[in-house]
Amino acid sequence: MAKTDFKKHIRTVPHFPKKGVMFRDITTLLKDANALKEVADEMAGYYLKKPYSIDKVVSAESRGFIFGAILAKELHAGFVPLRKPGKLPAKTIREEFDTEYSKDAFEIHEDAIQKGDKCIICDDLLATGGTSKAAIRLVEKLGGEVKSLFFLIELEFLNGKEKLKGYDVFSLVKYDKE
Amino acid sequence: MAKTDFKKHIRTVPHFPKKGVMFRDITTLLKDANALKEVADEMAGYYLKKPYSIDKVVSAESRGFIFGAILAKELHAGFVPLRKPGKLPAKTIREEFDTEYSKDAFEIHEDAIQKGDKCIICDDLLATGGTSKAAIRLVEKLGGEVKSLFFLIELEFLNGKEKLKGYDVFSLVKYDKE
Repeated sequence: MAKTDFKKHIRTVPHFPKKGVMFRDITTLLKDANALKEVADEMAGYYLKKPYSIDKVVSAESRGFIFGAILAKELHAGFVPLRKPGKLPAKTIREEFDTEYSKDAFEIHEDAIQKGDKCIICDDLLATGGTSKAAIRLVEKLGGEVKSLFFLIELEFLNGKEKLKGYDVFSLVKYDKE
Repeated sequence: MAKTDFKKHIRTVPHFPKKGVMFRDITTLLKDANALKEVADEMAGYYLKKPYSIDKVVSAESRGFIFGAILAKELHAGFVPLRKPGKLPAKTIREEFDTEYSKDAFEIHEDAIQKGDKCIICDDLLATGGTSKAAIRLVEKLGGEVKSLFFLIELEFLNGKEKLKGYDVFSLVKYDKE
C-alpha cells in the first residue's frame, strides 16, 4: 500500500471529453512536488525489488511520457516513445487499436528495441487496455520482452486487465466504478 | 562542458518533416540509458547550483514532457504540462504562437501556477523561440516567475535566443547551422 492517498491528488472532471465520462485529471497530482516524488518512488521501488533489470521503458504520447521518462531515469533504463503516425522520423512499424473513445494507431522506431530487451510499458491510465495491447505487440514484434506494465490509474470497471492476461500489471490508483 | 558528446547520440534525419529540414532525432539518445542519465544529471546539476529553488517545471507536449518530468523529479518540483487546445479538462488560458512549420496554440490550467512560483520552462528544442515565448506568457499571466529555460538542443542559426532576451537560457547541445 502506498503511504500517500494518491486519489486525493487526482481531480475528477465530469463530462470530459464527452458527456457521461468522469475524467480523472492527473495535473493536480503532477503539480504537487511531494505527490510526484512519491509516485516516482513507488514506481521505482516496485521494480527495483524485482529479480530482473530493465533495459527500456516504453510509453505512448503524451501523458505516458511523463511517468515513463521518470521511471526510465530512476531504473537507469533507456526510454522509448510510441508516437502517433507520422511523428517518428526514422523507419517504424505500426499498430492500430481501439481506445475508450476512438480508433487510433501508434508507431515505434524499428531500432528502438534490441532483441531480448527487458521492457516495462508505462502509461498514466489503464482503461479498456487497447493502447497497452498495441504497445505490447509493438515491443514483441521487435523482439523485446514485456516484463511488466505500469499504470498510475486503473479503471477496473472497464476490465482492461483482461486484455493483459499473462502479464504483470502494477497500478497505483484503482477506480472500481465510473 | 558536458563530459558526454551528446551530439553523437542524436540522429540527423534529412528532409523531415519536410524537404530541406535536417531533423534532429533525440530518440537515439533517449533509448541509451547512460546518455539519458547524463542529460538528467547535467540539467539537474545546473539548477541545483543556482541560489533559488524551483517550484514548477513547465513543459509543452509531447517531447517536452520527457525532460520536463525528469527535471521536476530531480529538483523536487511540481510538473505542469502545456497542452494543445481542448486537451486539458479544467479551466485554462491559451496562447497562440508561430512555430518553424506552422501556427499553433497551447493551454495551461489556471490553477497550475501559484502567484510567485519560481518556474523553469523545459523543452527538447529551441528553434525560432515561438513556443517558448508562448510558454513564458502563459506562466507570467498566472503570476509565475520564469527563472530559466532549458533546452536539450538549440538551433542557433534560427536565433530563437533573441526572442528570449532577459531570460536565463541553458541548452546542452548547439547546432550552428542546418
